[in-house]
Formats: sequence, C-alpha cells, structure tokens
Amino acid sequence: MPVNRRTVLTGAVMSAAASTLGTPVAAQTSVPAAGQAPGFYRYSVGDIVVTGINDGYGERALEGFVRGVDLADVRKVADEEFFPADKVRISYTTLVLQIGGKVVLIDTGNGDMGPPTSGRWMANFRAAGFDPAKVDTIIISHFHGDHINGLRLKDGTAVFPNAEVLVGAKEWDFWMDDGQMSRAPEAMKGAFQNVRRVFGPMGEKVGRYEADKDVVPGVTAIPAYGHSPGHTAFAISSGNRKLIMLSDITNHPGLFVRNPDWSVVFDMDPEAARLARRRMLDMAVTDKLQVAFYHAPFPATGHILKDGSGFRLVPVQWA
Amino acid sequence: MPVNRRTVLTGAVMSAAASTLGTPVAAQTSVPAAGQAPGFYRYSVGDIVVTGINDGYGERALEGFVRGVDLADVRKVADEEFFPADKVRISYTTLVLQIGGKVVLIDTGNGDMGPPTSGRWMANFRAAGFDPAKVDTIIISHFHGDHINGLRLKDGTAVFPNAEVLVGAKEWDFWMDDGQMSRAPEAMKGAFQNVRRVFGPMGEKVGRYEADKDVVPGVTAIPAYGHSPGHTAFAISSGNRKLIMLSDITNHPGLFVRNPDWSVVFDMDPEAARLARRRMLDMAVTDKLQVAFYHAPFPATGHILKDGSGFRLVPVQWA
Repeated sequence: MPVNRRTVLTGAVMSAAASTLGTPVAAQTSVPAAGQAPGFYRYSVGDIVVTGINDGYGERALEGFVRGVDLADVRKVADEEFFPADKVRISYTTLVLQIGGKVVLIDTGNGDMGPPTSGRWMANFRAAGFDPAKVDTIIISHFHGDHINGLRLKDGTAVFPNAEVLVGAKEWDFWMDDGQMSRAPEAMKGAFQNVRRVFGPMGEKVGRYEADKDVVPGVTAIPAYGHSPGHTAFAISSGNRKLIMLSDITNHPGLFVRNPDWSVVFDMDPEAARLARRRMLDMAVTDKLQVAFYHAPFPATGHILKDGSGFRLVPVQWA
Repeated sequence: MPVNRRTVLTGAVMSAAASTLGTPVAAQTSVPAAGQAPGFYRYSVGDIVVTGINDGYGERALEGFVRGVDLADVRKVADEEFFPADKVRISYTTLVLQIGGKVVLIDTGNGDMGPPTSGRWMANFRAAGFDPAKVDTIIISHFHGDHINGLRLKDGTAVFPNAEVLVGAKEWDFWMDDGQMSRAPEAMKGAFQNVRRVFGPMGEKVGRYEADKDVVPGVTAIPAYGHSPGHTAFAISSGNRKLIMLSDITNHPGLFVRNPDWSVVFDMDPEAARLARRRMLDMAVTDKLQVAFYHAPFPATGHILKDGSGFRLVPVQWA
C-alpha cells in the first residue's frame, strides 16, 4: 500500500488490547450480489414530478471526439475528470414528467439499437413504477438515434402504443425532406433512414411543436439549434419553480461544460451549437436554474457555476 | 420564463406545420409514483464487491458549522455548491464489502436514532440483497452516533446478531475510559453514554484492530486521528486495485475538500484532524486513488483533484 507509515502514523502508542486479527469468523452463506440499483431518480419541480430514467452508457474513443482540438489537450481534461484511459463514457438519461395526471416523456433512449452497455431504459422505467402503455405524450428533443430509437423496436414494434408523439417542426422538416437526404454525405444517410424507420409508420399522427411555445402545459420549447437543425431544450415550469432540460446542448459536461467552445463530433452546425451552448449555460448561471442534461452522468441534473472561461456542473445532492 | 426570446430564437422562420398544441390527449389512469430508487451503489475493487448503502441525510444550520470561519465566507462556498439556503445536508453512506465469501460492513448508519430524513439504511441494505443476520464482520471507523447507532436499536435489540464487531483499540480506550467521561464537557457526556449503550451489552466480545495493520484480509486500518481520538480510514485492496474509505476525514466535501484547512464543529482535535485531512487528500491525489467518504453526497465515491489551495471531489460516473 502507498500509505507511508511514518507520515500517516501520528506516533501514538497503540493499545495492546486483544486484537481479533486473523480470528476466523463463523462461516456463513455468502450473500448473493443483487445487481446495481435501478437507474431512476425522482425530484420535483413545483407540482410536477420529474423522474430521470437512465439508459446506461456508451463508450467512444477520446480521439476524434472533440472537433479541431489537439488530443493532448482533450486528454488533459479527461484525466482531470478521471475518465477511463483514452475513452469517454456517454450516459443517457431521459425525463418522465407527471403533469396534471398525465405521463409525459422527453426522449426515449436507445431502445434495442444502442451500444451493449445501453438498453437499460425499459427496466429502469418499469422499476420507477411506469407502464409504457400508459404514457400519454412523448416529446422528442431532436432526431438522433439515441433519442428516438426507444419509440420503435428493431422489429418494428411501437413501444408506446397509446402515446401522442410531438416533434419539433423544424427538426421534422429537415430530416423528412428527401432533398436533404439525397444531398447528405454518405455517412449521414443512415440517420435519415432511421428517422423514416421510426416515424414513417406513424405518418400524420406525429404532432409538431413550435419554438418558444408551450409543447404541453408546463413545458415550453426553447430553440437551441446547431447540434441538429431543430435541436430543442425545454423549460419545465410549475408555480415559481423551473427546470431546464438542456437536451444535447453539451455531450459529456466534463468536456463541454468546462470548455463550452469545444464541439463534439456530433454537432451538425458546430458554430450555431457553440453559441446555443454559451447562451443556455449563461442563462442557467444568471438565473441559478436547475438544469438536466441528456448526456450528464446519472442522475444528470444539477446547477451551473461559472468557472474560469467556462462553466462547471454541480450535480444535485441525492435525496 | 426568464428566457429572452430575442436572444434564444435563432431567427429561423418556424415551419407552419400543423401543431398539436392544446390538443387534448387521451385520458388515462395516472401512473402512481413509486418512491425514490433504493440508495445503494455497487462497484468493484479487484475481487472485492463494494456496495455503498445510503442512510438518508440530516440537515444542519450553516451557522456554527465551520469552526472559526466567518459565516459570510462559508455562505459564499455553500452558495457555489448550491446548498439549500443557510443549511448543509449531511449525507450518510456506509460500505458493505463482499470479500472471499464474507460480508463485511464498515460502519452502520444511524439506526433508529438519527434525524427524521435518515433511517433509510436497512431498507437500502435489504434492497441491495443483504440480510443483517448474515453479516460476518462489522468494522467501526469511530464512535460518533451516526456510525455506531445502527448496531443497536433504541429498544436494545442487536441488529446484526451473528456479526463480529471490530473497533479501533485507541478509539475504544478513549470512549470506554470512565475518567475521560467524567472529565468531558457536559455537552459530550451523552456521546460517552451512547457508546456504553451500544457496546456495553457486547462486553468482551468486541474485537480491537490496530493502526496500520490488517483489520480483515483486504482491509487495512489507516490512522486518521483528530476527528475523534481513534478515527480511522481504511485501505481496501484486491490485486492491484485499491479504494480508500476516508471515513470522516471530511464532512461535506463541498466545504472541506475545497477548504481542507476548515474544521467542522464535530472535529474533536481540529488541528490533528486538519493535518490528517491534508495528508489523506494529498495521498489520494498523488496516487490517483479512488476514495469513498461517509459524508459525501451519494454514491459518495470518486477521485480527488488538486484545485487551488484545496481540492475537489470528482464523483464517479454512475455505471
């Protein structure tokens, strides 16, 4: 052990009282290890009950993850945040809102199409006491697969058979435009096809929400375009309490809250995303708002502090 | 809402696609809110399975909490850590170690004698798959009530009927000394009586461990005197992996990891506690060790980063 006895021992003479070191303890049946505690975290915003539902995580190489920044500089920050060596763990946490007797989801996780360390969403959702057949409304922040694939299994099954689905009008118009798809780089074609896989069978039943308007009572759409063309954050308000769901305004906060001018490789319009990130994080600081992130470590909620030229996420204290 | 539309709206003309705003959603039975997820968190240190078991929290006034520091200075830090106004929430998280088929506890929580927001330990312990009758060994870090009261209910019942209890020889000698009790200030007499309440009925069955020696295989006692006369931290080792249980080397890390020269009102020898705190936090930084704290926000484990003249706790990323 690395403890230096000369530095840690205070010099007190130890009691010579009988020690039981090495004494065999009564043999007992080993306790079977239950798994991890279910990944849900419940809090309230006025009369609204909020439940963060974790969908596990995915791992990516650190190399190539931050656009246009030297890997050595990214590594330095990653080391200070105690990331696994040369990797970033991207957590996924959606929100369930209980508003006036309705169950409202913001995003749906990876469904059965995410990385092997994801796919925990449904088990956590059920452990939190919810039933997918009793979801009233699903609000989608943007159309990247880790946010929408929970809507429909790989085999085509609709996961929330009775839910109304609401998407950003601007996001819908971009991804459902066949011209955009045909002009997109080859590497993005799969994302367009996936949007059609998920939403195609719903057709005209998919509702649209507009920027700066209520999506449902208590939830207002805040345009935060850049990460995707219609990427949206949400103000969740009840009485004088407010929570901002920042969606993908940052990927891992250890990198992008600290360095808001860095862009994750997934930001489709990096400069617009950067401006939205600075604007939203500044607002969180000025108004001392509680925020939630889709990609912050579970339970993925806290407050934002100004820290040097960037910011810092102070996670909530579990209660 | 405080969002300034002129600053958050990017200026894009919103699609005129049909919005479902205000459309009534199908009335459904409201989902009953389950409570919070059980407060346990499982991780591994080599072959040792570690489970943090949360016992809720207690609230104290910020005033008088830090010895000899102006309330305004304490408030400034508390505000940056987003504490509730003028209060500190003290979390309690004990460790369960599964070592070679044995179940070993480090500390036991408040039992039925803590503040009303505590007392969750047994439910969380059982939710993690454990049975108090199958605990083999209990290691006690020091004799403050929130660490030992879980051993024995208010009515005298022994909570872990089959467990061997191991306490620091130096801690035992101090608290069980009738001379020390008679010389103690009136405000401390209750603590002495409580130690007798808990350990008295066990008599000579209470085992002692010595500083810098193995308490059980895989767990070494690291003297960290000051918070109490025999206050002990622990190195938990398996293969080349190590976790340091820092016990009460700090109270809330938001105050005392950041400001290691500050002393919580509970530190019995503030200067010795301060030196132990600096020494242990320096060691955690130098050796990049994963640490656990009894009083850090759940799940109460992470790594320590040097930050200015103090330190910062980087919590683990939930997995």
